[in-house]
Amino acid sequence: MYDLYYWPFIPGRGEYVRLVLEAAEAPYRDVARLDPAQGGGPDAMLAMIKDAAPHRPLAPPFLVADDVTLSQTAVIVAWLGERHGLAPDLEADRLFARAIAMTTADFVDETHDTHHPLGVDRYYEEQTEAAAARAKSFREARMPKFLGWYEALLAANSAGDTALVSNRLSYADLGLFQSILGLRYAFPRRMASLMPSHPRIAALCERVAAHPNVKAYLDSPRRLAFNEDGIFRHYPELDGD
Amino acid sequence: MYDLYYWPFIPGRGEYVRLVLEAAEAPYRDVARLDPAQGGGPDAMLAMIKDAAPHRPLAPPFLVADDVTLSQTAVIVAWLGERHGLAPDLEADRLFARAIAMTTADFVDETHDTHHPLGVDRYYEEQTEAAAARAKSFREARMPKFLGWYEALLAANSAGDTALVSNRLSYADLGLFQSILGLRYAFPRRMASLMPSHPRIAALCERVAAHPNVKAYLDSPRRLAFNEDGIFRHYPELDGD
Repeated sequence: MYDLYYWPFIPGRGEYVRLVLEAAEAPYRDVARLDPAQGGGPDAMLAMIKDAAPHRPLAPPFLVADDVTLSQTAVIVAWLGERHGLAPDLEADRLFARAIAMTTADFVDETHDTHHPLGVDRYYEEQTEAAAARAKSFREARMPKFLGWYEALLAANSAGDTALVSNRLSYADLGLFQSILGLRYAFPRRMASLMPSHPRIAALCERVAAHPNVKAYLDSPRRLAFNEDGIFRHYPELDGD
Repeated sequence: MYDLYYWPFIPGRGEYVRLVLEAAEAPYRDVARLDPAQGGGPDAMLAMIKDAAPHRPLAPPFLVADDVTLSQTAVIVAWLGERHGLAPDLEADRLFARAIAMTTADFVDETHDTHHPLGVDRYYEEQTEAAAARAKSFREARMPKFLGWYEALLAANSAGDTALVSNRLSYADLGLFQSILGLRYAFPRRMASLMPSHPRIAALCERVAAHPNVKAYLDSPRRLAFNEDGIFRHYPELDGD
């Protein structure tokens, strides 16, 4: 049994962990979404950050498993994936999957900064002008760079283009899937113009969505919808072809 | 023998890898700093990014070791540290060291964004106003948050405050050391006001600097100076008490 800790109202970075747990059918409690009477809620999460010393996380998400406290999304998903058959077998492939997960985390950070380029300590509404400039750079330079890289990985995979590494679905694929869904939500116009030239990514996402455990999860109330408090926010003024 | 690939003119993210190699006395070639006649130079690095398929990096730094291509700073330093005795022994501690390295990578990214809040596709001089706002947020909210976290880890370490994890010098400590040097270079006024309340970090940095292999490296021509093309840039207008 795992205890996942993440903000209860947004998919955010916690969703990357949740997807691996769900795809693996690993039993877990989503602690901050539980009732405070059951020891849940955001306050229980914030208390844990301090109680977890000396392995305290800087920020959610974090995962508690028996005697281990794991933090940083890319560390958590790699550890879970390698434990639950959602990682490649070969060591060189495993190391590359870790690099992919970390690159996906960077992509998430850059997506976040499109609406908060001046800092997280003030609202989006206080930085709309800078956000427009950062979002333009993101749409025109960064989205093609990251998406082109994932597409090239699929094209170069000697085991076929059904997974980013080896021929087995891994946490790296699940992470790309979640990012693509988030980008389609946040930047529908830009994604409509970009995705036709990234057919392998699109096909991978369809396969992930059809995975029985993933499909069951996406249809369940456990899946949180994207919204404008999260990382992937749909502000039409930041989108463009 | 390792081949390290990174931009030759800045310490940047490559320096986090170089420090682990040097502290471990691991033999390596710094490929992009070699003469093109020896197969070196930035062009050799950029060619490698494409040749490394299917394990191609998105960006430098990356490290080639026999049949493995490693990318993403936090993945590289963890792998090197665990191979060369610069990592904790216990599995829970190893996983936490990985999370620290990834958090340090996030801190580096945020430092970078103080001078490029609107995007990497335009010069600092074209985004000075936004940079002033982002740097203020970084100085007042983010620097205390990150530094306070490292200091708390040292205080909470049951093996003593001589290392971030366990009682052994690790790549996590080397990363903090490099970041503190970079921040002292980029934000001397802010660091002068912050560091007195973070005495454990200061003491750790002194111990790392006195480590024989590290000291020999810092005194060598292999060590690149911080400069205004790198991540840690000294723009006095972005600094403040």
